[in-house]
Amino acid sequence: MLTGRMMDFPLTLTHFLERARTYFGSSEIVSRRPDKSLQRSTYADFCRRAARLAHALTRLGVKPGDRVASLCWNHQQHLELYFAVPAMGAVLHTLNLRLHPNDLGYIARHAEDRVLVVDRSLLPLLEKFIATVPGVQHVIVIPDDGPVPEGRLDYEALLAAEPDSFAFPPLEERSAAMLCYTSGTTGHPKGVLYSHRSIVLHSLAECMSDTVGVSEADTMLPVVPMFHAAAWGLPFSSFFTGAKLVFPGPHLDPPSLLDLMVQERVTLAAGVPTIWLGILALLDQEPKRWDLRSVRSMLIGGAAAPLAMIEGFLHRHGLVVTHAWGMTELNPVGTLARPRRQHEQRPQAERLALRATQGYAVPFVELRHVSDSGQVLSWDGTTMGELEARGPWVASSYYGDEGADRFTADGWFKTGDVVTIDAEGYVRITDRSKDVIKSGGEWISSVALENALMAHPAVLEAAVFAARHPKWDERPLAAVVLKPGQSATKEQLVAHLEPHFAKWWLPEDYVFLPQIPRTSTGKFLKTKLREDLGDYLLKASRGGS
Amino acid sequence: MLTGRMMDFPLTLTHFLERARTYFGSSEIVSRRPDKSLQRSTYADFCRRAARLAHALTRLGVKPGDRVASLCWNHQQHLELYFAVPAMGAVLHTLNLRLHPNDLGYIARHAEDRVLVVDRSLLPLLEKFIATVPGVQHVIVIPDDGPVPEGRLDYEALLAAEPDSFAFPPLEERSAAMLCYTSGTTGHPKGVLYSHRSIVLHSLAECMSDTVGVSEADTMLPVVPMFHAAAWGLPFSSFFTGAKLVFPGPHLDPPSLLDLMVQERVTLAAGVPTIWLGILALLDQEPKRWDLRSVRSMLIGGAAAPLAMIEGFLHRHGLVVTHAWGMTELNPVGTLARPRRQHEQRPQAERLALRATQGYAVPFVELRHVSDSGQVLSWDGTTMGELEARGPWVASSYYGDEGADRFTADGWFKTGDVVTIDAEGYVRITDRSKDVIKSGGEWISSVALENALMAHPAVLEAAVFAARHPKWDERPLAAVVLKPGQSATKEQLVAHLEPHFAKWWLPEDYVFLPQIPRTSTGKFLKTKLREDLGDYLLKASRGGS
Ligand SMILES: Nc1ncnc2c1ncn2[C@@H]1O[C@H](COP(=O)(O)OP(=O)(O)OP(=O)(O)O)[C@@H](O)[C@H]1O
Ligand SMILES: Nc1ncnc2c1ncn2[C@@H]1O[C@H](COP(=O)(O)OP(=O)(O)OP(=O)(O)O)[C@@H](O)[C@H]1O
Ligand SMILES: [Mg+2]
Ligand SMILES: [Mg+2]
Repeated sequence: MLTGRMMDFPLTLTHFLERARTYFGSSEIVSRRPDKSLQRSTYADFCRRAARLAHALTRLGVKPGDRVASLCWNHQQHLELYFAVPAMGAVLHTLNLRLHPNDLGYIARHAEDRVLVVDRSLLPLLEKFIATVPGVQHVIVIPDDGPVPEGRLDYEALLAAEPDSFAFPPLEERSAAMLCYTSGTTGHPKGVLYSHRSIVLHSLAECMSDTVGVSEADTMLPVVPMFHAAAWGLPFSSFFTGAKLVFPGPHLDPPSLLDLMVQERVTLAAGVPTIWLGILALLDQEPKRWDLRSVRSMLIGGAAAPLAMIEGFLHRHGLVVTHAWGMTELNPVGTLARPRRQHEQRPQAERLALRATQGYAVPFVELRHVSDSGQVLSWDGTTMGELEARGPWVASSYYGDEGADRFTADGWFKTGDVVTIDAEGYVRITDRSKDVIKSGGEWISSVALENALMAHPAVLEAAVFAARHPKWDERPLAAVVLKPGQSATKEQLVAHLEPHFAKWWLPEDYVFLPQIPRTSTGKFLKTKLREDLGDYLLKASRGGS
Repeated sequence: MLTGRMMDFPLTLTHFLERARTYFGSSEIVSRRPDKSLQRSTYADFCRRAARLAHALTRLGVKPGDRVASLCWNHQQHLELYFAVPAMGAVLHTLNLRLHPNDLGYIARHAEDRVLVVDRSLLPLLEKFIATVPGVQHVIVIPDDGPVPEGRLDYEALLAAEPDSFAFPPLEERSAAMLCYTSGTTGHPKGVLYSHRSIVLHSLAECMSDTVGVSEADTMLPVVPMFHAAAWGLPFSSFFTGAKLVFPGPHLDPPSLLDLMVQERVTLAAGVPTIWLGILALLDQEPKRWDLRSVRSMLIGGAAAPLAMIEGFLHRHGLVVTHAWGMTELNPVGTLARPRRQHEQRPQAERLALRATQGYAVPFVELRHVSDSGQVLSWDGTTMGELEARGPWVASSYYGDEGADRFTADGWFKTGDVVTIDAEGYVRITDRSKDVIKSGGEWISSVALENALMAHPAVLEAAVFAARHPKWDERPLAAVVLKPGQSATKEQLVAHLEPHFAKWWLPEDYVFLPQIPRTSTGKFLKTKLREDLGDYLLKASRGGS
């Protein structure tokens, strides 16, 4: 091999900080506090505070490689942790505040967190598990909703005592920067250890025109929590470009978000479908109340964005949805649903339908799907198989080495998502492998049925899952939530689905529920549905016999 | 150090090929042949041909690390070499067809080229130096303007004999991919050895919304030659995104370029200022002839883009210029002139003036400027010093190790450009270090004077350079080319400059020339001006005394 003669300049977050300090000092950061007031700041101030934080943590004994945990909403201080901790060579571990305290304790022990930074408003949650994590030597409290209790380390007081600049050490680009756990839908949460390199490359990809295209001229609102898959990397990529950043704090209800979007002239916002379903419903109710002309796109992912929602936003409110698929194990963005030049002449409905697929791989992510027996499948748009991924921001193993079976011998990561891939490379998730419905030996796509049900005007949400069946082993059962004040009968829903599906795909029955159980990150919790309703058809058939 | 747990996926051009094959098969490539006809093709076809080329070169004995030279215009076959050669692990060395045959011979020997691919239309040039390069074992001829002469290897015949796919080997990302020589304005050309990593990262940066923002929806016309600094990396970044590519072949005259831009609906075009000066003059003459509404930006760099030109394009033709600074040693883009959010409210003239600076660093390039004594200078917008750069796509040494004095002990590359940097980070090149004018011990910026002169309506081009002076050691002398049919006197030019400069900055005299000598890459050749006219003032003073 002949080696190139170019500098060995490492891809680290230190450069992001340096670049922000040098060029983007006047860019704004806005965070909403628990009392709904706004904290306003600039990148220049941010960089000084990040330096102070690095000093304070050093003083508390944080060493390279140590884990510093956060238990925080989305706000500027959390962003300070995002940069100061990795740039000092330590590792930021974001704790998911929606998890059960037992899980939080498990994860904090598993990660061997040494310092934990927590919002004062979240202290009651912390108290429920901190005693089970003796490894945590210091708890630092961010006074978000009032003064820090006596005897606790005060984040602001610590920063106030330190100087404005810090000599961040040179780092290797493969050194660990951040530790994120999967949401634990399918067993114990597993840790994914991002490197500086993986975060930097993922950020570069998110700034490309054909992906999110984050720009200095943008105003980014990450609704997706910073404690979940690094808020899809958007705090990193936005900060990298010098974009204005707007953080919602704990206020994730639709009116609060819409007010913030209008007030701060948000151009890009990102979150899971539940959030946007709520926003769409509110916009439909009061179409004139919010002026959202500043918004150029809403990034939706983490669970399937129903076509009806994407269509509703576009046709009724002129808002463009960019649907993306990702995983904690992918740092996290893997695909993005954008029509390409070859689709320009296709009918608008077809282009919209493409926007509702999971899309095609972002640069540097490579995908394939394989059969149960490990055979690589063809991209014909109909053959279902488990999606596998590889690339510079795909995990090569879990922290702690659980789940070794998720990594193939030839270097791919098994996503656990069951998909089809069409000839143009568009991926459609039909199910998660733990949630597949196998009826009479054949797979039925719950996601396709859910999307169709959610297109019914009376349906707010619908989850289709596998219920045990005496003859077919499993049959699809639909859990349906109706919009307030609306009604629909089983017969109407059947009539609505019939034109679009083979008869044997149609749900065996419909259960109307007030809400659908969800995971900590907004995905349908089908294990819970199966637990509660898995025997529904057996009982019904016994009842009926 | 704790190491991240992410895949060691190398950043190589192999992924670009794989991605293009997978997703962008229908994207177009259009090349103009010497006879002006258009060769039309697709990425799918391109990928097959790149595979065939790799087979053919392997068969000819090309091994990893071997240099394969090209002596070609911009066209699809050249692009095939851009990808097939590095992806097989060999190194593409692009020869600059504008150089003197002696220089070409020197460079080809220095690079130890083993195979050379040449356009049939350039065979006469090849014959002038190939005998001096005994190391070249095979010459392959691309039949661009007619059949390949008897006894020569025919590029198309070689490809026709090979299969459509090639197992490109796994490569380390730091392995060499491309060898580009500086244009040799200041001594023997020096080789810069790009790695896969440097090209890939540079491509990612070029796709960012805030830089070039190349997108799949774009149609890119690289006018800048592929034999000069990899055509600014645009063939790589454009191909990476799946953009339509349009190559001008040898037809670089303004009407041919404008016709091509209209015909192929070009959205982005890139070239040196001379090219665009010619285009602007023609558009001014015939403002209605070409419909350029498809064009979203023209990237101009390689030499200073005069403000008057940027302004003329915008105000008279609605065309946006993106001014960039780069060097062969930087793979090559270093800065880009874009106003930022903080300038939104500034007067339009000020924003335009920012667009005429060299701009601020692109992501992952870090800059500083230093005094003669090596002191790092402050960013005050007035202090001049030599610009230094570092980053993952900055050279760490030259191929062959000449010019070791260009690399500082603390890891920076000395650009040889003399600049100011203002508090917002905008760089203004005042001169090249070999071209600086030192009058009575003080520096005068030739570039500032040239820009001002070129804003005069009768002036097509102006170069200001150092002429020897009996009293002041050096004084600025202006070489001026007038527009056809226009006139201007020395007195008029003095009156035009006076309001903008200190008296002692004004050129000592004005010499009217039919054209200004240029380097092979379109820069003013001030060494030649000094050679021809360096004693002009001495003679004048003697004559006048
Ligand atoms: N756009 C999308 N459409 C459909 N499903 C999506 C989309 N984006 C993400 N998902 C689902 O979310 C999963 C990734 O979720 P995440 O990494 O947050 O943790 P989890 O998979 O829920 O937790 P665990 O792996 O512990 O069960 C994907 O594997 C996929 O099933
Ligand atoms: N936008 C620009 N404005 C002013 N000068 C520019 C601009 N872009 C490039 N240049 C000049 O071009 C130089 C880089 O040119 P290149 O790498 O093509 O070879 P060269 O410097 O002409 O050759 P050599 O180094 O052998 O003298 C820069 O150092 C700078 O002087
Ligand atoms: Mg998972
Ligand atoms: Mg040079």
